[in-house]
Amino acid sequence: MIDKKLEKDIEFIVELDKMKSILRQTRLIDRSRRENDAEHSWHISVMALLLSEYADEDVDVCKVIKMLLIHDVVEIYAGDTFCYDVEASKDKKERELKAADKIFGILEEKKGRELRALWEEFEEKKTKEALFAASMDRLQPFLNNYYSDGGTWKRFNVSKSAIYERIAPLKNSSKELWKFARNMIEDSFDKGYIRRE
Amino acid sequence: MIDKKLEKDIEFIVELDKMKSILRQTRLIDRSRRENDAEHSWHISVMALLLSEYADEDVDVCKVIKMLLIHDVVEIYAGDTFCYDVEASKDKKERELKAADKIFGILEEKKGRELRALWEEFEEKKTKEALFAASMDRLQPFLNNYYSDGGTWKRFNVSKSAIYERIAPLKNSSKELWKFARNMIEDSFDKGYIRRE
Repeated sequence: MIDKKLEKDIEFIVELDKMKSILRQTRLIDRSRRENDAEHSWHISVMALLLSEYADEDVDVCKVIKMLLIHDVVEIYAGDTFCYDVEASKDKKERELKAADKIFGILEEKKGRELRALWEEFEEKKTKEALFAASMDRLQPFLNNYYSDGGTWKRFNVSKSAIYERIAPLKNSSKELWKFARNMIEDSFDKGYIRRE
Repeated sequence: MIDKKLEKDIEFIVELDKMKSILRQTRLIDRSRRENDAEHSWHISVMALLLSEYADEDVDVCKVIKMLLIHDVVEIYAGDTFCYDVEASKDKKERELKAADKIFGILEEKKGRELRALWEEFEEKKTKEALFAASMDRLQPFLNNYYSDGGTWKRFNVSKSAIYERIAPLKNSSKELWKFARNMIEDSFDKGYIRRE
């Protein structure tokens, strides 16, 4: 007999395979195609491992990584919402809460609750770990855009102020990374990747 | 001035984007396409988070996840070697050692050494964390094959004994997961996904 809880874990793991088909607006640096949620989640988790030393306060990097690994799983049902799409962002919260009930509901209750708590902490962006995790989540598409001559910034004609707003969590979590990102935004502006307003 | 070490970290992070283009033989469960190293690394890292409770001995799940996040980065230069391809597996070690020099060599020395040590521990499969990590690495393609009616097992006409050999790390790291995998192999055999010998 296979443990009932393990059966639920496997069901959840099988469902996670769908993350590989949830497309984001960000493209790979080689511009060959759009990246998906699974790739993005992996990339930012390694980034956390590499960059946590630049956090202003000591962060529990293990907790940051756990958050990042699961921060997008609600998108299996809610879809990816492009951050600069004001209209689609209006009902994002509602869609994602419903999706959270569904995806974390697959797991045995205690486990589902624990994972959902991690997701909620990430969403609220209040603890230092959630803030640093959000910084990684923002910095990765930022790098992909910069290293592909503007990427989604250029394609969607995004303004400098919108990018500064998007990257704001960095300001409150790492002076060093914030300085780095600011330099990159100004350089992108000079290069014509970003429009003025 | 941007910190020299941070510059190297960013160079490494940008290089990691290539993991999204290293194709494995395993297909997505919906059979739409082959999965890549970034997706695979994400999937097994979440699996470790969910399944570490079934490890026979207490494992440091944080260390397991760190190993899994970076275990395949050498493939950016060495390519993915199909586990059932005996010929290609002959010079795998040599190719991967060269690749490790190159990829971890991008980082500032101490950081590169730390990450490489994690990779080496994974490769050696001696510590309980490395064994559990290897179990996740083996179990994920196993699940993808099972839930897509045989996947690579069927396509490459893989034998039952070869699969048992491949899944062996599970036997030494989790009785519960080993029992689960064994049931699945026998069921796959009964369903005709796997050939006898």
